[in-house]
Amino acid sequence: MAMEPFAIGLTPADYEKHGALVTRRTLSQLQALYTDREAVERQLAEGDPVVYEVYELPHPNDETDLLVNITVLYPGKVGEEPFMTKGHFHAEPDTAEAVIGLSGSGEMLIQRRNGELRRLVVAEGKISYAGGGWSHRVINTGDVPLVFFAVSGANIVHDYDTAARLNFK
Amino acid sequence: MAMEPFAIGLTPADYEKHGALVTRRTLSQLQALYTDREAVERQLAEGDPVVYEVYELPHPNDETDLLVNITVLYPGKVGEEPFMTKGHFHAEPDTAEAVIGLSGSGEMLIQRRNGELRRLVVAEGKISYAGGGWSHRVINTGDVPLVFFAVSGANIVHDYDTAARLNFK
Repeated sequence: MAMEPFAIGLTPADYEKHGALVTRRTLSQLQALYTDREAVERQLAEGDPVVYEVYELPHPNDETDLLVNITVLYPGKVGEEPFMTKGHFHAEPDTAEAVIGLSGSGEMLIQRRNGELRRLVVAEGKISYAGGGWSHRVINTGDVPLVFFAVSGANIVHDYDTAARLNFK
Repeated sequence: MAMEPFAIGLTPADYEKHGALVTRRTLSQLQALYTDREAVERQLAEGDPVVYEVYELPHPNDETDLLVNITVLYPGKVGEEPFMTKGHFHAEPDTAEAVIGLSGSGEMLIQRRNGELRRLVVAEGKISYAGGGWSHRVINTGDVPLVFFAVSGANIVHDYDTAARLNFK
């Protein structure tokens, strides 16, 4: 069974009203992303901030669907590094992801398995497109939450490990 | 080869600057959609208006890509019926399509092969989602161009014939 048709506001609040699952990622869960270990320790000693939230509409894992998520990536830094999403490849099939900025500003770091790295702007009213074969991570370069819409096929398998190994460097 | 990564404004002008192909559909090409034959003849006697334009970035038919098009659907009527897109199912695989309104207002008519018909709002800041198995047609119910973003898998095959036979009635 595919998702039921719907028409809702493209905001986190509307997604929640429509039954979205919210995944909150905190700094303690993401600490391996940061190189400045002291800065991580210092920040965690004061609490465990939410770095980002993903609003995902429940979908019955039907490969004919599209994933249409909204992410809120909070502003912040760990040492010199900005708050960022975990980053992943899509595995089997290695399909595209498109991001549309809703508010705030940042960048999408994308990387091929051979290490080639590029940076795409993420901003309100812009579409940023990573084709198959590019892992993608979004970073918040501003002072306000970066809210963005992301779409991909619902048949994707997230490959976080390869992305973590290359680590967008 | 998949599409090259890009980050561009989500507007027809930015798409054109980025090399988008523009498909213009005029009333004479679409006249079979309308029931009021006299109104069609009357309007065509005065010219052949553009009903809608689709801005599509060139893509190398790689099934790992996403189609990320912008459509400008002009305001207008033929008799009592509003300007509308042709409408289509996706065939093999029968996958989803999501629409995000950018400006103007309208509706997405969606229909199953068994004839079941629904209407979804299309408006700025709203996402309208037709899962696999639903044909979709957008109509402009306002007085200004309805501009919308549409996304689907790049592996879709358009099935216009079944949608035309059922004709969203």
